[in-house]
Amino acid sequence: MGMTVASTPPYKLCDLVDGLEVTIQGDPNCLIENVSTIHQSKPGSITFLTNPAYRKYLATTQASAIILTEEDGKDFVGNAVICQQPYYVYAKIANYFVKKINQTKGVHATAVVGEHCQIDPTATIAPNCVIGDRVQIAANVRIGPGTIIGNEVTIKANTQLDAHVVIYDQVEIGERVRISSGAVIGSDGFGFANYLGAWHKVPQLGSVVIGDDVDIGANTMIDRGAIDHTVIEDGVKLDNHIQIGHNVRVGAHTIIAGCVGIAGSTVIGKHCMIGGASILVGHITLADHVVITGGTGVSKSIHEPGVYSSGVVGAIPNHEFRKNNARFYRLDKLFDRVKALELAVKSYEEKMDG
Amino acid sequence: MGMTVASTPPYKLCDLVDGLEVTIQGDPNCLIENVSTIHQSKPGSITFLTNPAYRKYLATTQASAIILTEEDGKDFVGNAVICQQPYYVYAKIANYFVKKINQTKGVHATAVVGEHCQIDPTATIAPNCVIGDRVQIAANVRIGPGTIIGNEVTIKANTQLDAHVVIYDQVEIGERVRISSGAVIGSDGFGFANYLGAWHKVPQLGSVVIGDDVDIGANTMIDRGAIDHTVIEDGVKLDNHIQIGHNVRVGAHTIIAGCVGIAGSTVIGKHCMIGGASILVGHITLADHVVITGGTGVSKSIHEPGVYSSGVVGAIPNHEFRKNNARFYRLDKLFDRVKALELAVKSYEEKMDG
Amino acid sequence: MGMTVASTPPYKLCDLVDGLEVTIQGDPNCLIENVSTIHQSKPGSITFLTNPAYRKYLATTQASAIILTEEDGKDFVGNAVICQQPYYVYAKIANYFVKKINQTKGVHATAVVGEHCQIDPTATIAPNCVIGDRVQIAANVRIGPGTIIGNEVTIKANTQLDAHVVIYDQVEIGERVRISSGAVIGSDGFGFANYLGAWHKVPQLGSVVIGDDVDIGANTMIDRGAIDHTVIEDGVKLDNHIQIGHNVRVGAHTIIAGCVGIAGSTVIGKHCMIGGASILVGHITLADHVVITGGTGVSKSIHEPGVYSSGVVGAIPNHEFRKNNARFYRLDKLFDRVKALELAVKSYEEKMDG
Repeated sequence: MGMTVASTPPYKLCDLVDGLEVTIQGDPNCLIENVSTIHQSKPGSITFLTNPAYRKYLATTQASAIILTEEDGKDFVGNAVICQQPYYVYAKIANYFVKKINQTKGVHATAVVGEHCQIDPTATIAPNCVIGDRVQIAANVRIGPGTIIGNEVTIKANTQLDAHVVIYDQVEIGERVRISSGAVIGSDGFGFANYLGAWHKVPQLGSVVIGDDVDIGANTMIDRGAIDHTVIEDGVKLDNHIQIGHNVRVGAHTIIAGCVGIAGSTVIGKHCMIGGASILVGHITLADHVVITGGTGVSKSIHEPGVYSSGVVGAIPNHEFRKNNARFYRLDKLFDRVKALELAVKSYEEKMDG
Repeated sequence: MGMTVASTPPYKLCDLVDGLEVTIQGDPNCLIENVSTIHQSKPGSITFLTNPAYRKYLATTQASAIILTEEDGKDFVGNAVICQQPYYVYAKIANYFVKKINQTKGVHATAVVGEHCQIDPTATIAPNCVIGDRVQIAANVRIGPGTIIGNEVTIKANTQLDAHVVIYDQVEIGERVRISSGAVIGSDGFGFANYLGAWHKVPQLGSVVIGDDVDIGANTMIDRGAIDHTVIEDGVKLDNHIQIGHNVRVGAHTIIAGCVGIAGSTVIGKHCMIGGASILVGHITLADHVVITGGTGVSKSIHEPGVYSSGVVGAIPNHEFRKNNARFYRLDKLFDRVKALELAVKSYEEKMDG
Repeated sequence: MGMTVASTPPYKLCDLVDGLEVTIQGDPNCLIENVSTIHQSKPGSITFLTNPAYRKYLATTQASAIILTEEDGKDFVGNAVICQQPYYVYAKIANYFVKKINQTKGVHATAVVGEHCQIDPTATIAPNCVIGDRVQIAANVRIGPGTIIGNEVTIKANTQLDAHVVIYDQVEIGERVRISSGAVIGSDGFGFANYLGAWHKVPQLGSVVIGDDVDIGANTMIDRGAIDHTVIEDGVKLDNHIQIGHNVRVGAHTIIAGCVGIAGSTVIGKHCMIGGASILVGHITLADHVVITGGTGVSKSIHEPGVYSSGVVGAIPNHEFRKNNARFYRLDKLFDRVKALELAVKSYEEKMDG
C-alpha cells in the first residue's frame, strides 16, 4: 500500500482495495469508518452481498460502499467494489478494522521457561505461560496468557496461540497457525488393551504434526499418535469443540465445522468440507473433495468426491415425531409385509390373466 | 431473616423458610442439619418430592422434614413444608447448606493486571489471573484462579467466574452471572472465505454481550460476532459443553442442556428449552416458548411454540437395529412399491366393480 | 527385571518380555530400538498383529520382532513373541519406549498453595499451579503446570494430573488416576428450578468421587452431585470431550469413547463399553456388560447384557439421502397405507375364495 494510507479509520475506499482484483464503481475517495451487515448498514460503513436472500436490501442499504459481483452491481447506483468473490474481498478489507492491541514483545517476567529453549526475540510470551525444555519458538510467534507448552515443542514463525492453550511434548506446529483458547494438542490417544476384564493403557508414542496456515478452534483437541503421528496438513481449518483421535490425518485445505468427532486412524482427503456435529468412525478413508453434511454419521470409507449425508434431520412436532419414530422400529417387518402384498397381488394378476 | 438465625447448621425449619410463600405442617422448630434425597434420607435432613415415581417413599422417609405440594401433604404425618413449587423452595433452602469458603478480597499478588483497569475494592482476583488493559470489574465480582480476562472487558456486580475461564477482548458480562471452568467467551467465530481452493480468515469484528443472571457451564464456548455481537440475554442458563456460533442470539430465560451446538446467526426466542445434544443449523429462528427434545437436529425455523423432535431415538439390540437401519436406505423405493400396489388394487377394484 | 537390562533403547527382546506370559520364537537376544506398525515397520522395531486385515503384512514386515497369537505365529519364520493377548503384551512392551522426562520433585516456586495442606515430599507440583486450603496430595502425585485444585481435595498416591486441569472443592481422586489437560472435575451440576418463568439455581451440594486406576481424557468434564456424589468407580476409562452429569455413577472397568454425553442420575454398570458420540438420557440404568455402539441415543434403561444401537448410520449420497429422509416423515402414514392394502387384499381373497 502507498505511503499516504491512514493507519486508523476512516480509510479511503480506494486504499482499502489496494492490491485486490476489483474495480470501483462510484467514488473511490469515499471514506469508510467501519463494516456493517447489508440489512443493518449505516452511512460510513462498507458491506457486502453474497446471500441472494439479502439482494432486496440493495435498494435501501445505507452503507457508503458495498462489495458486489458484476451481476449484482449492474443496477446499483451507489459506491460499489465489483469483484468475482465478494466474501473474499470483504475478508481482506475487514482486516483493516481489526482493533490493534499493543503487545510488548519478549518473555513476560511471570512466564516460566525451561532449559535449552530457543525463543526468537521478536516472539511474545504472555504472563503466566509455562514452557518446557528444548522448545523452539520462531520469529513473531505470539503465545497468549496462561498457555502451557510441553518439552521439545517446535513452533514456526508468525503463529499465534491464544490464552490457555495446551501443547503437549514434541508437538510440531507450522507457520501462521492460529490456535484458540482451551485447545489441547497432543494429549494421549485413547488406547487400552483389555486383559482379564481390566483395561491397560497402551502408551501413545507418536506426536502431532500441524502444517502451515492451520486454524484450530476453542476447546478443540487433537490426540497424539499411538506409534506414528497424527497429522493436520497445511491450510486446514478446524472450528470449536472438535475431537480428533490418534493417528488421524486431515488433508490440506479441508474445513471442519464445530462439534465434529473423528475416531482414530481415519484419513480425510484434501479440500473436504465436514458439517457440524458429524461423526466419523475410525480406520476409514475419505477421498479428496468429499462434502459431509451436518449431523452425518460416516461409518464407511468414501472413495468418490460428492456430497454425503445420513441421519434423520428436520425437527417436527413431537407428537408426530413419536409416531414415525416408533414405526422406524417396525420398518424391517413392514418390508416383509409389502413383499407379501406384492406376491399376493402378483398371484391375482396371474389368476385374472390366466 | 431475623437476628437469631444460626449462621451454621443446624437451622430451625421455620428459619429456613423465612420469606418464602409456604406453610409449615408439624413442628416449625425442628432442627435441620443437611439435605437428602427422599429415598436415602436420614434423620436431621430435609428433603423434597417432585417426581411422582418417588411418592412411595413418603411412607418410609427418615427425613426430619419434607417439602411437598398441598396435594402430596394431605396424608403426610411428619413435618412438612407445604408450597406450590417444592423444587423452587428446596433450591432456596439448600442455599443455607452451601459450604462457605473464606476468600480474601482484593487482587492476589500473583495476578497480573494491565493498565487503566477499574477494579472495585470488593472484587476478588484469585492467584495467577491475567487481566488485560482497560478492564472494568464491579463490586463483589469473584474471578477464580488462573482465569484470563482480555482487554476492554466489562464485568458487572456480583458476577462469579470460576477457575480457568477465558474471556476475550471487549466482551461485556452482566450482573450475577456465573461462568464455570474451561468456558471460553469471545473466541473468533468460524468465518473463512474460499479463494482458489484455500480458505482465508474473515476477521471477527463483533464481540459477545452477556446479560444479567446468566449461567454458563464448564467448557462451554460462545464465539464473538463477525460484524455485530453475539448476544446472550438475561436469565439464560447454559449447561456444559455447548458451542454457540457467531452472531447467535439466545432469548431471555431460555435454558439449554449439555452438548448442544448452535450454528452461526441463529436466533432463539425467550423461554425456550433445548434438550441435550441437539444441533441447530445456522441462520434460523426459533419462536418464544419452543421446546426441543434431546438429540434433535433442527434444520428450519420454528415459528410456533410447542415441542419439536427429530432423529431416531431409543436403543434396541444391535441385530434388530441393523435390519431396520438397512431398510431406511430403501425407504424411498418402498414408498414407490406401496404406490404401485395401491394402483394395482385400485385397478382390480374397478374391474371387479365394473 | 534383571540388573543388566538397559535403561535406554535398544533393549534385548527377552528383557522386554520379562515377567509376561509369553514364549519367544527365534532370537531372544535380538535388539529392539523402537515400535512400529506392521504395515510401516522397519528393522530394529517390534510390532504386533491383532487386526486380521493386516495379516497379509506378516509376509513382508521389516520388523525385527512381532507379537503374535500362537495361531498367527505358526508359519511365521522371523522373531516372534507368542502370547494369548498380543495387544496387551504390546502395551506392556511399549512402556519401555515412553520418553522419560526429568521432573524435579517438590512444589515449584511459582505455585500457590493454600493453608493446612498435606503435600507428600515425593509429589511434584508444577509451575503456576494453584492449590486451595486443606488439600491432601499423596506420594508420587504429579500435578502439571497451571492446574487448579480447589479446597479440601484429596489426591491419592501415583496419580497424574496434566497441565490445565481443574478440580473443584472436595473432590476425591484415587490412586494411579490420570487426568488429561482441560478436564474439569466437580463443576456444578445443571440444576435450576423454574419459578414464574425465571430459572433459579439449585445448589449442588454433593461432590465427585473417583476410584483407582481411572483415566479421564482431555476436556472431559464430570459434574458434582446435587445432594449425593457423582461416582466414577475403579478402572473406568473416559476418552476426551465426555460430559457426565450430576449424580451419575459409572461402574468399574467401564470404557467410554469420545464425545459421549451422560445426563444426570444415570447409573452405568460394570464392564460396559459405550461408543463415541452416544447420548444417554438421565435417570436410567444400564446393566453390567452392556455395549452401546457409537452414535446411539439411549432413552430407556437396559436390563440385559448385549449390544445395543439406535440412530440411522451410514452416509450415502445426499440426493438419495434427502429422498429417504423425507419419506421418514411420512412413515406413520405409510404403515396405515400398507394396513389398508392388506385389508383390501384380504377382502379379495375372501371374495375369490367365497
